[in-house]
Order: sequence, then structure tokens, then C-alpha cells
Amino acid sequence: MQQAWKSYQEQNKDRFLNEMLELLRIPSISANTENAGDMQRCADAVAQRLREAGADRVEVMPTNGYPVVYGEKIIDPLKPTVLVYGHYDVQPADPLELWHSGPFEPVIKDGKVYARGSADDKGQFYMHVKAFETMVQTGTQTTNIKFLIEGEEEVGSPNLEQFVADNRDLLKCDVILISDTSMISMENPSIDVGVRGLAYIQVEVTGPNRDLHSGVYGGAVANPATILAKMIASCHDENNHITIPGFYDDVVEATPEERELMARAPFDAQEYAADLGVQELWGEKGYTTNEHTGIRPTLEVNGMWSGYTGEGAKTVLPSKAYAKISARLVPNQSSEKITQMLLEHFRKIAPASVQVNAYNLHGGEAYMTPLDSKGYQAAAKAVKETFGKEPIPVRGGGSIPICAILEKELGVKIVFMGFGLDSDNLHSPNEKFNLENYYKGIETIPYFHQYFAEA
Amino acid sequence: MQQAWKSYQEQNKDRFLNEMLELLRIPSISANTENAGDMQRCADAVAQRLREAGADRVEVMPTNGYPVVYGEKIIDPLKPTVLVYGHYDVQPADPLELWHSGPFEPVIKDGKVYARGSADDKGQFYMHVKAFETMVQTGTQTTNIKFLIEGEEEVGSPNLEQFVADNRDLLKCDVILISDTSMISMENPSIDVGVRGLAYIQVEVTGPNRDLHSGVYGGAVANPATILAKMIASCHDENNHITIPGFYDDVVEATPEERELMARAPFDAQEYAADLGVQELWGEKGYTTNEHTGIRPTLEVNGMWSGYTGEGAKTVLPSKAYAKISARLVPNQSSEKITQMLLEHFRKIAPASVQVNAYNLHGGEAYMTPLDSKGYQAAAKAVKETFGKEPIPVRGGGSIPICAILEKELGVKIVFMGFGLDSDNLHSPNEKFNLENYYKGIETIPYFHQYFAEA
Repeated sequence: MQQAWKSYQEQNKDRFLNEMLELLRIPSISANTENAGDMQRCADAVAQRLREAGADRVEVMPTNGYPVVYGEKIIDPLKPTVLVYGHYDVQPADPLELWHSGPFEPVIKDGKVYARGSADDKGQFYMHVKAFETMVQTGTQTTNIKFLIEGEEEVGSPNLEQFVADNRDLLKCDVILISDTSMISMENPSIDVGVRGLAYIQVEVTGPNRDLHSGVYGGAVANPATILAKMIASCHDENNHITIPGFYDDVVEATPEERELMARAPFDAQEYAADLGVQELWGEKGYTTNEHTGIRPTLEVNGMWSGYTGEGAKTVLPSKAYAKISARLVPNQSSEKITQMLLEHFRKIAPASVQVNAYNLHGGEAYMTPLDSKGYQAAAKAVKETFGKEPIPVRGGGSIPICAILEKELGVKIVFMGFGLDSDNLHSPNEKFNLENYYKGIETIPYFHQYFAEA
Repeated sequence: MQQAWKSYQEQNKDRFLNEMLELLRIPSISANTENAGDMQRCADAVAQRLREAGADRVEVMPTNGYPVVYGEKIIDPLKPTVLVYGHYDVQPADPLELWHSGPFEPVIKDGKVYARGSADDKGQFYMHVKAFETMVQTGTQTTNIKFLIEGEEEVGSPNLEQFVADNRDLLKCDVILISDTSMISMENPSIDVGVRGLAYIQVEVTGPNRDLHSGVYGGAVANPATILAKMIASCHDENNHITIPGFYDDVVEATPEERELMARAPFDAQEYAADLGVQELWGEKGYTTNEHTGIRPTLEVNGMWSGYTGEGAKTVLPSKAYAKISARLVPNQSSEKITQMLLEHFRKIAPASVQVNAYNLHGGEAYMTPLDSKGYQAAAKAVKETFGKEPIPVRGGGSIPICAILEKELGVKIVFMGFGLDSDNLHSPNEKFNLENYYKGIETIPYFHQYFAEA
């Protein structure tokens, strides 16, 4: 079986790559309404590829937002079913001026594909389509396989819960497999066993009812930019602890054993800092870098703007100041509860000289995969098979808000088998995906199905 | 004489207005290079108007930036000479969406002209052109009159010092008269006897070398937006005192007598707050609102931006954060010294996990007109003549950085005879100038020349 996979994949290597590049050329940015046509085009392209790969039922299914692409090949109702989740939408590409090549004109350089969506998530979900094709074409499919490829992950999957609830029978499965995370390195393969939750809000501070001359009024009216800066500054103390009352209440502290295990993962702080171009790392006192991004909740400013931002000097005292602020949450913290806490906090700490409008933008719960679950065990064996090494279980820093929803609606566990790298520039300019990782993913996935079927 | 002025102005009322509207239609924004053609067009229009008004020498004089318009009519070398300073450039008009009508399509509503530059400063310097015409046409010019109308006031007059130094003889005069400020109200006429200095800097904070995924890296890397917010927040204490070491060192405190005199100026805090739409005024503890904007130095954020500022949620940890920050200074504070102090402060307080690039954008010194100067006395008499009330001397909050330069180069005092109102929305959307104020200015100015000639 392995030999058949290997030679099929070797023979179709170039086509596997070109098909991925085709998908990357479609600017399927779910956040921009002007890309609505591209979104539909991308969904249709994904459906067509699933058909060509061997799915015997494929549908572009409408939602209240962008459609979900569904595909399946059921070989035997008695065999276990794997539901592959992925998303065909991508993040906005701005700031465009920082890209070395067009975000939707994929370029291959030094064995890497540069394009928006290459790692997040087109390149990664497409590994599953090509692994599926490999199994179908070599007559070695070991599980029933279903695909659920959505188009609204990057805007918080607002319609997925309803879709899954409405299609519970269609989506019935024994495990959910997601490749939308990364591993430490090719030498140190790892599997994410957790993703953080998210609470994302916008805060708008209004001072005077119009932009004012900063000389005529400066000193007599609260400046909303200054007030917002003070509000943001007050959210972390000198040890970088988050100061919002109650924020840590529901955090289940990691045990010393768990922290000890995490500390064994290979990590070079100097290399990490050098890659980011910073002289010093940062973070909550008392925790390591991997703990900062893995087991601790955080609060970050994602965007902030006020007043004059053009060239030169404009002496304005702004009327309004805005911030986008999000918290990453750990298991047992409730996204809804933290969102409310953040909103109330920002409303409360504002002085009476300004008005605050704070509202929820999106959110989702943290998720943990049990190490002893059938799905995790199959993934670990598959990775060991192709990488020659036992994968390290790690807690990822990102969020996949739909995990909690999928588990709740479908009643099965989720396994994250990500083949990206932290250096893939997700959500940043020059997003890339290493070709080696793409092919390794396609090579590894059939083993997952085999081991899961055998378990 | 007075009767001749009055009837001439009455007969030409509509033309005086239409000519001002013509000037307002030219988008002479000195900050935007794309308006370079409009700037030249505006300079030529001003020159043409000076010629038509009766100047016998008019020149559009080049500088290293936008040209200066010079005009004069010397009636007798033995008579005193008044140099009228004004500027034909205007502030950028953004945010455009907040204007009720086009910023360069003047609209008259309820006795007010709405347009960018109506009060600052086209409408105001044009009062002088029309007052000059009145005197010329009625054969009643009492002083030599020179006009210096520049095109770079709104960008800090970078070339004016050199221009004045190069043309000291041409600009020789006995007093400089400027209408680029406001009065309390038509019922409570006032004359600004001081303008604040300015130190305007830009601060750029760089964290990681690229925008990062806020989940993957959040918590482990200093967020430049958060750091910048902390830096801004640290500049004021809980009493709204500025905390930058040495900031107040050179401030000469106003005497109790001076403060007592200021407190007599009519001021309704409730009305002031209501006009601005704020529930509470703000400012440095221990000082009144008029003191906040008059005799105290201030520090304001004029602009601030970082990360994602579009619609919806983007989970980015920004690479960079920017702020435009300016201080208003009082007499005896040095703009250069405070600029250096601000730059050093922002460089110093940054943690090692970010890099700070801070630099000067523009600045200028504060200026005070002596109450016992011939110029102030003539202005006070002129205002009393047409308003029927002794004007109140007040300290204005804005800055006219060229004042200190003009006094240094030409060795004479400056008088501010402003006819605008604080509610004119200078530098804001819907800038306006009341027609009543425009005509009152034209009516008052000839008296200034008369009283100055007689003194």
C-alpha cells in the first residue's frame, strides 16, 4: 500500500503543486465584500477538485454567508468515517506594500510557495484532497471520508454552527481532522493538542463632537487618543499580567508536570528573537515563551487609530479614537464571559469626559485534544511513520473557534495535524508554505486513515 | 473719513463677498504635494487681487517651497508702515465625509460661509485687502501698507525665515498686523496678546520585523501598539500634569493678578462643554479652562495608528505603531529645547523589546504682544470704535510660529487683530466664517491704520 502511495504521489508531484497554485490565485478574502465573486469562484473550484479527486458526492451548499463545500466518498458504512475540515477563505492581504510579490500571484522561491492562503489554509486543506486522490486512485481508501471546507473561517465562522446543526446527519463521523496549524520543525515534528480561545472586541472612544484645533482647545478637553492609550496601558501591569478584574479566574493552571513536559520541546529563544528581529522577548513574568503562547491567556491590540495619520503635521485634537483588541483564552475560560468582561472593563474605566462604545467582533472557545483519543493516537503514529520520530504534543497559540462548535454538534473529537511552520507568516505579508511540508503532508495523511481504521 | 469708508463698503458689499468665495474655491492645501498647481494658482489670484485693490507694486516671489505674495502701496516714506501678514494656504480637508458641503465649494448658510480656509486664513487676510481697497479708493490711506501673504503657514513656514532675512529692506515696517486668531464673541470683543509655541514630533515604535499572527505569537513579543499606548499614557499623571522631566522648568508662572484679570473674561463652562458635546471638561488640576488653553503648556496626541484598521477582525500583532504628538508652549519655553526633551523622553522610556524612531516635524516659539505697545493700543482703539466696547486682552491657545521669526528679523512688534470665533471649526470639518465678522473686520481695519498713524 505504502509503495503504491509513494509512486502515485511521485508521478503526480508537479500537478499536485500546480493545482494548489491555481487555488492560490483566487483572492478569496472573506472580510472584503468586494471579493464576493471570488469567494463563489473559489468554492466552485474546490468542489470541482473534489469531484476530480474521486468524491462521489460533492455540493456547494449555501449558508447565510459564503457557501460551504461538501464532498464525500463512503466506501463502507461499517468503516469509521473521517471528516476533514478546512477553509477556502483567506485573510486580507494588506499591507500590500510589504509583499515581495503579489499576494495572489504565487511565486516559488527556495522551495517555498509565497502567496496569501498558501499555509492558511488552502495549501493545507488541499493536502487532504491530494491524499484522498492518492487513496482513491490506488484503490486503498481505508475509511469513509467527508470534506467540510468552509468560506468564513477568517471572519469567525458566523454561519457554521447553524450549518452543522442543520446537517448533523450528513456530517456524521468518528473523528474530525484539521490541518490548519503548524509543527515545530521538520526535524522536530509536533502535533497541536490545543488551540486557544478568542474574544475580539472593538473599542471606540469619543471626546469632543468634532475634530478640534489642538491649539485653541488643547489642554481643556479630554483627548480620546490619550484616554484610549491610558485605557490600553492600564490592561497590563509591570509584570505583563493582565489587570482586568476576574480575567484569570477560570484559568486552570498547568501542573508542574505538564510544564516540565512542555519545557522539553526544543526551543531556541535566541533564534526565535532573531527571526522576529527583536532584541528582547517579552511576556507575562513567571512563564516561558512557549507557555506565553501555549498555556497562558493574552491580551493584544490588533489595531488602533485616531486623528491625523497622513504625512507631516496636522494640529488636530481628534474627536474619536479606535482600537481592536483581542484576548487569547485557554481551556475553561469562556469566550462569552471574557468578552463581556472586556466590554464592561473598557466602558467602566473611561472617564466621564469621553464616551465609550465597545462591542464584540468575534470569538470562540479554546479546545484540547485528549492524548489518549483514537484520533490523536492515529495522527501520532502517522507522523512517526513518515518523519521517523515520535511527534511532540504542543499547545498552539492560535484559535480555531469552530472546534468547540464541531465537537458539540457532532459529538466527536478533533485532531490537529498541521504541517505548516511558525515562520510561514500567517496573516502577515509574504505568507508562504514550504513545498517539502506540502508533500510531506500528502504523504502522511493516508497513514492517518489507515491507523484510524485499524484502531 | 469714516462716512466715506462706510458708504464705499456698503456699496461694494456683495463684491467683497464674492471675491472671498472665489479664493475659497482654490484647494490650496500646502501639505498635499498633489495641490502644487492649486497653490500657484492661489498665489497668482492673491497677487491679482492686490493689484486690483490698489497696490502699486505686487510680486509673486519664489522661495524653496511655495511662493510668497508681496504687495505694497507707499504713500509717504515719512509715514509709519504697517506690514500685514497672512497665509493663502489651508489645512487638509479630511475627514471629508464629515463635511456637510464640499470644503472647496463655499456655501452660505445662516449668515456663515462654510469652506476650508474661510476663517483660517483666506477670509481673514482678505479683510485687509478690502480695507486697503477702501482706503485707496476713498483717498484716505493713512499709513504705508505692505502685504506678506505666505503659502506655507499650515506646514510650519519652513522657508519664511530665509525669505524674511533675504528681504529685510523690502519688508521694513513699524508694526506687523495679523488677523489669524479669533475673538471671544461679537458682544465681547477681544484681542489676542499671546500665542503659544509649538513642538510637534512623530514617534514610531517597531516591535517584531513583520506583522505577526496574534495567536501564534501573542503574549511572547512586545506589541508596539501596547508599548506606544503605555508611553503616551505615561506622559500625564492623574492630575493631568505633564510628567516629562523638565517640561515645566522654563514656564514663567502667571501672577495672581494676571490670573485674576483673565478670570474676568466672560466664559460659560457649561456652554463651552455643550458646544463640544462633552459631559465634562478636562485639564491640568489647579487651573481654569481659559488658563488651560491660554497660559499653560499642553501635550496632545494629534494622530495615532497601528495594525489593522479596516472593518471586522484581523488577528494581527502589528510590527509598527505610530503617533503624532505635539506640545503647546508658553512664553520662555524654547521650542527646540522642548522638542529635544520630547524626543529623548520617548526614546528613553521605551523598553528594550522595541525600537523607537522619534523625530521633529515642526515647531515655533510662543509670542506675547506688550499691552503698552503702539500697535496694541491702536488695535484696541479701533476695535472699541466699531464694536463700542473696550476689547479684552486674552492669551490665545494656538501657535503662529513665524511671530518670533518676524520680530527677530524685522525688529518690530506684532499685533493680532483676529475677527474669527472659536466656533469657526479651524482645522476641522465644516470650517466657517461669519459674514458679520468678515464685514466687521473690513470696517475696523482702516481705524487701526488711522490710530497707528496718529500715535
